[in-house]
Amino acid sequence: MTTSTTFHPPARLLLGPGPSNVEDRVLRAMSAQMVGYFDPSLVEVKSEITRLLRLAFGTLNAATFPLSGTGMAGMEAALINLLEAGDRAIIGVNGAFGDRMAQIVERCGATLIRIDAEWGRPIFPEQIEAALKKASGAKLFAVVHAETSTGVLQPLEGFRQVAERYQTTFVLDAVTSLAGHPVEVDRHGVDVCYSGTQKALSAPPGMAPITLSARAMELARGRKRKLQSFYFDVPLFAEYWETHQAYHHTPPITFYYALLEALRIVEEEGLEARFARHRLNHLALVAGLEALGLQMHVEAPYRLATLNTVKIPADVDDAKVRGRLLREFGIEIGGGLGVLKGKVWRIGLMGVNSRPNSVLLLLAALERILPNEGFSCGSGIAAANAVYAQG
Amino acid sequence: MTTSTTFHPPARLLLGPGPSNVEDRVLRAMSAQMVGYFDPSLVEVKSEITRLLRLAFGTLNAATFPLSGTGMAGMEAALINLLEAGDRAIIGVNGAFGDRMAQIVERCGATLIRIDAEWGRPIFPEQIEAALKKASGAKLFAVVHAETSTGVLQPLEGFRQVAERYQTTFVLDAVTSLAGHPVEVDRHGVDVCYSGTQKALSAPPGMAPITLSARAMELARGRKRKLQSFYFDVPLFAEYWETHQAYHHTPPITFYYALLEALRIVEEEGLEARFARHRLNHLALVAGLEALGLQMHVEAPYRLATLNTVKIPADVDDAKVRGRLLREFGIEIGGGLGVLKGKVWRIGLMGVNSRPNSVLLLLAALERILPNEGFSCGSGIAAANAVYAQG
Repeated sequence: MTTSTTFHPPARLLLGPGPSNVEDRVLRAMSAQMVGYFDPSLVEVKSEITRLLRLAFGTLNAATFPLSGTGMAGMEAALINLLEAGDRAIIGVNGAFGDRMAQIVERCGATLIRIDAEWGRPIFPEQIEAALKKASGAKLFAVVHAETSTGVLQPLEGFRQVAERYQTTFVLDAVTSLAGHPVEVDRHGVDVCYSGTQKALSAPPGMAPITLSARAMELARGRKRKLQSFYFDVPLFAEYWETHQAYHHTPPITFYYALLEALRIVEEEGLEARFARHRLNHLALVAGLEALGLQMHVEAPYRLATLNTVKIPADVDDAKVRGRLLREFGIEIGGGLGVLKGKVWRIGLMGVNSRPNSVLLLLAALERILPNEGFSCGSGIAAANAVYAQG
Repeated sequence: MTTSTTFHPPARLLLGPGPSNVEDRVLRAMSAQMVGYFDPSLVEVKSEITRLLRLAFGTLNAATFPLSGTGMAGMEAALINLLEAGDRAIIGVNGAFGDRMAQIVERCGATLIRIDAEWGRPIFPEQIEAALKKASGAKLFAVVHAETSTGVLQPLEGFRQVAERYQTTFVLDAVTSLAGHPVEVDRHGVDVCYSGTQKALSAPPGMAPITLSARAMELARGRKRKLQSFYFDVPLFAEYWETHQAYHHTPPITFYYALLEALRIVEEEGLEARFARHRLNHLALVAGLEALGLQMHVEAPYRLATLNTVKIPADVDDAKVRGRLLREFGIEIGGGLGVLKGKVWRIGLMGVNSRPNSVLLLLAALERILPNEGFSCGSGIAAANAVYAQG
């Protein structure tokens, strides 16, 4: 008999900013044996992934595929493929991920035009337009659809018109919105949109779905200087993805199995039903948290369904509450990032985890823990159940 | 009952240049449910991965971890973290992957000093030294330990002395050698060494194990200009890996499970036994191929055990033979890359696939196919079995 020690991860309910738990079907699909990256059987897998990603992104873009890195890699690829030294880029910063984009712009040697907003408020198209007026010829502007650091859902109306008026490129971060909120890339005139797989898709982290308009692909192909990155050179990767011939790198094949299965689950549920489910569980959670006596960080019209930020009450020990949730209940929630560190908790209800069981269990656990930590709270269960009863 | 279509990949014996088949234990480990990237349970996983990677690389380097991309990402990260515009880099090019390194050097805006050798021959330390004499102050030199495009095993003796004499940095590509050949980073004075996971480790593609000497980390930390890539910024990633606190990106957690299990299998087998196994199966394959009447592309002293290149006989249709192997036997072997396209087949015997069953089945299949394709061949089985009988 051969014996060995194997790692058995503890059972967790992942209600943090991501990763989310993975659908069982996805884990099973991903555990199938390997094939080569030119295997004929992958041709259909890839074209199905493209078809289903187009559905989730709301686009007809030819260039729609997963890059071989996490959502952060999607952000980097989106910006570096478009920007060259000397270009100007306008970045809306209302959270940590807008700030990341700004950092990448600077690392590219491009000129950063930074539009700051409060961490908890959206960016308005007028702000982008005002910046474009001053910096005519800016190559792109970018905003974050779902700010994972603040819980803000960025409304997308009005940006398309700005992009058209100033003949510029619209880049959108949809890491925490794809498959949880409508993204509608084509309707909103988004030129480059990227996401991750470990959020509302409930697949493991490791891929970055991305879609680029014909115009964006032309910009990436027409660079004066070759992109520094070979690995994230989108036109080169597109050649492998689309022709199934040119070797670029060995892609993460088991992740293709995983992504395909995750996207099929999305299609089976239906996008509208999925968005409605995310919204209902979000509303129930908010009702429950408020009934506990907690306050949301973001105003109602700008709240994400996938990522809920709630203020940590004064005198309550952030780390202690999160530690007890993890140890006593196996529940992970997120602490604040950047300027919100110690000020908010981040509660994700994404993909398979956006369900009444998650909401009710978390509320029950908080109801047990908070009074011991100096916050005398009510009960959230009845309020959440009332939301579910209304449907 | 809910039904759905799921992708079931065809059963393949992957004897190409990689990916290799994945160990069953690795697939099972990888299908465990997700935990968060700050989960306390990952602390031990990460430190075990580091311990076992140090063993495989033959190093005591503190900075030893898997980057969140494929082997190609490892190559890119190794070079871009060290090079800045204006630096000079000497690259030994004796195959497609040396050529890739050269391309990345140019994409960095560094000055490329290219040492070319025949595709099938190694690079000699004297060639690097001659280049260093002319280009004193070159920041690094790099060679490929296992050229996946040619089947050449690069001897590592002598480079350390050259690096010391010229106070420069030694970068080594070990994508197709790690866990199949001794790498011995510390003994050979290698400063940066990277690999992939889908070759002799028999894990899925998607991670790039890398190790950096203290000197290399100092260079990466002491850059004048911030690295363009945030995602592949090694000092930033090291902070997450080592402290388990700083958020950098959401790492591919299920891949950590996979890599840990793959490395445990390596440790259980023992490195020396594993190298001997790779060598024995390689020798049996070569004996068999030569008995079939085929000729190896590389001279005996420079042959890789993990990747065998054999000349395609005149008048034999490359694609047809590979197509029949795949369709009739489910066996994938690789065609030639670059200047070797149409001239050689690439036969990988890596990790779990380096075993007598792979060798004998491939020889038997070739013995069936080649005569139909105009090459009257002998039998390879007896010759291979003779090698196994000697052990």
